[in-house]
Amino acid sequence: MPNIPKGTRDFLPSEQIKREIIIDKIKNVFRRWGFDPIETPTFEYYKTLSGKYGEEGEKLIYKFLDLGGRELGLKYDLTVPLARFFSDHQNEIVKPFKRYQIQPVFRAEKPQKGRYREFYQCDIDIVGSKNLLSDITIILTINYALKEIGIENFVIKINHRRIFKSISRKFNIEGREVELARIIDKLEKIGIEGVKNQLFEKNFNKDVVDGVINIISRKFQLEELSKFFSDSEFEIAYNELNEIFKYLKKFNVNFEFDVSLARGLDYYTGMIFETKVLNYEIGSIASGGRYDNLIEIFTGYNVPAVGGSIGIDRLLTVLNEMNLFNERKTWTDVLITFVKYEDEIISYGLKILEKLQNLHYNVDIYCGNKDLRGQLGYANEKGIKITIIIGEEEVKNNKVIVKFLEKNYQMEVKLDELEKCLNSK
Amino acid sequence: MPNIPKGTRDFLPSEQIKREIIIDKIKNVFRRWGFDPIETPTFEYYKTLSGKYGEEGEKLIYKFLDLGGRELGLKYDLTVPLARFFSDHQNEIVKPFKRYQIQPVFRAEKPQKGRYREFYQCDIDIVGSKNLLSDITIILTINYALKEIGIENFVIKINHRRIFKSISRKFNIEGREVELARIIDKLEKIGIEGVKNQLFEKNFNKDVVDGVINIISRKFQLEELSKFFSDSEFEIAYNELNEIFKYLKKFNVNFEFDVSLARGLDYYTGMIFETKVLNYEIGSIASGGRYDNLIEIFTGYNVPAVGGSIGIDRLLTVLNEMNLFNERKTWTDVLITFVKYEDEIISYGLKILEKLQNLHYNVDIYCGNKDLRGQLGYANEKGIKITIIIGEEEVKNNKVIVKFLEKNYQMEVKLDELEKCLNSK
Repeated sequence: MPNIPKGTRDFLPSEQIKREIIIDKIKNVFRRWGFDPIETPTFEYYKTLSGKYGEEGEKLIYKFLDLGGRELGLKYDLTVPLARFFSDHQNEIVKPFKRYQIQPVFRAEKPQKGRYREFYQCDIDIVGSKNLLSDITIILTINYALKEIGIENFVIKINHRRIFKSISRKFNIEGREVELARIIDKLEKIGIEGVKNQLFEKNFNKDVVDGVINIISRKFQLEELSKFFSDSEFEIAYNELNEIFKYLKKFNVNFEFDVSLARGLDYYTGMIFETKVLNYEIGSIASGGRYDNLIEIFTGYNVPAVGGSIGIDRLLTVLNEMNLFNERKTWTDVLITFVKYEDEIISYGLKILEKLQNLHYNVDIYCGNKDLRGQLGYANEKGIKITIIIGEEEVKNNKVIVKFLEKNYQMEVKLDELEKCLNSK
Repeated sequence: MPNIPKGTRDFLPSEQIKREIIIDKIKNVFRRWGFDPIETPTFEYYKTLSGKYGEEGEKLIYKFLDLGGRELGLKYDLTVPLARFFSDHQNEIVKPFKRYQIQPVFRAEKPQKGRYREFYQCDIDIVGSKNLLSDITIILTINYALKEIGIENFVIKINHRRIFKSISRKFNIEGREVELARIIDKLEKIGIEGVKNQLFEKNFNKDVVDGVINIISRKFQLEELSKFFSDSEFEIAYNELNEIFKYLKKFNVNFEFDVSLARGLDYYTGMIFETKVLNYEIGSIASGGRYDNLIEIFTGYNVPAVGGSIGIDRLLTVLNEMNLFNERKTWTDVLITFVKYEDEIISYGLKILEKLQNLHYNVDIYCGNKDLRGQLGYANEKGIKITIIIGEEEVKNNKVIVKFLEKNYQMEVKLDELEKCLNSK
């Protein structure tokens, strides 16, 4: 039996280094777009999380008790905790509140390939403004972050939750638009027929089902839809989307309107988006939308908000499989090795280590008990490209041997020429 | 009733920015000393954690069930998960295995000032080597990390667990050395009298208690102790510590031997250390030691290991209260503001934002609905020092107004001179 809990993962150095590189890049783009960081606890009171994610989401929350018998839940996403945070700190923060947050979230998913029970989300949100510049900022930031990471071929699919309201008005099923969106959200997983069946199962009548299936299967564009719908809900969606699209075009963002895009979570109210990598079969790697009524549950008054989230797991899968990553197995640049374990030799090695660190090299010093050959093997296995070899001769003459492992080439270097030698590589 | 779970915290931007700065610095020192990163899940099977931390630790583990009814526990530290990780991946990693790991850990502590139920640990460990160069590397790395962060006045207290074995031999209480260490570990909290009472409570006899209290209260130095002890356990401790001390002296580390240092956790076997900030009342900010028998529980064969851990919460308290921190409330350098919300003005603003980002400025663009005065107030509140103001005139003439808020000084600048102007600040 494996010792690691089902559905979770360990990250070994070669994988964790990639994650560190990606997260740093994302963080830098977030900062460059004017977002500041926050963190919230790994668990919340269960009552904070419950009733926010819809029926199916609710079941996936990890629930437990604290010592005082209060119900806690591991956080399911970073949006509901943000809403709770905003409410608790509304007098300490500047509005509109632009924050990024990069932390793990937890879902008790059924084990299956590529689904994990713990994974990182990288979120940005703007809380406290209805201004569409917020929606635009979110999409542009996500767009730039993905490009910064090295993903070039992707399209951002955009829709608006009010269009579902408009549809439900037209078919006289007002109030059931969230239910409708939940089912349409499964389109990619279960296909058109699957959506049709689930609509029937939930007792939508034939007219509704035929109408909805017609709309989503023919992928109507916004202009075409405006021939069918003309109520106030559609009008708002239409105007907002056109305004957003205008600016995205100016920034050469590759986007498209997609009326079949629904997003699974209940709390969205306005623009919604998902990101598809082109020529590669994988779900959305970044998504989000406007949720103007969620925070009110915590504050008691209306607080508009819009946000987006990048999932780094799928991103890493894409980067790995598309070979968009320069492999780097270790952060270490140089390994210091010893011909013999003697006092003077070790002291000399430690001094060299200090010297190189001051020059901002990452330096490993061999801490095991193998002979020189074993030490060079260690460097090779770890993927360290340069070793420094020290014996009695070297200590005596204030020199070292520098060995470039890939080129299988070594040279004797005076200590004060070491930096030059390493830079020449 | 507060909405955040008892014993946990939210981190607002001003605090989270400090945490990001500190963690980055620590990470860089860890990398410079040859450590590579790993991550492990937030929870482990409960059986992985249980029986490793001693009676009192055990009670503090958050326990819950997964969907399959298996017992899980939130991780209590990063050392036991490392042991499990090493065992699971022993064929995929290079030995000696040097890793750093920076993640939150969880303890269901009784609520009291300065004690939190979730906090970050920054750990380094070297697994698979008895070589004392490992012990030295751990202490030196911790020493350099603390200095890099800006802590200058601290002393590293060092002891050796075998000395407790030696004491227990001398007083004929062999096998009870862990129990002894656990009580002595509380010295700072409960004082000499407290330790004395707890020893009596645990049925150590008067000779033992008097002997132990004599040793720890008189703070015997290593040389003095060698007059009382001469068994093989003491001899090993004596030789190892002297070897370690020799190298620490060469690196000008401020350390001292402290026979009353015990460390609370059961798994230590060799050198142990804690770090005290001088002239400031706070517990240890970094600690660790050698634990040669822990990993065997998972692997079934002996694997020596040594490690150290920095707790960033106490560190931040120290830095904040000693004013060792340059306050930085936001990552944002520049805010773009608008005289009017008009299409052309907003487009112009977004173009400037893009331009400045390419120059690696962090730029916020105002997303709310306040007038210019309100927008400048937003910059002030957030701690942004430069604003760019755009109106119709500016768009027409390809200019902007740059306002330096602290100096309350503003100037009109041509777009192609903007960079020069910002750099002149």
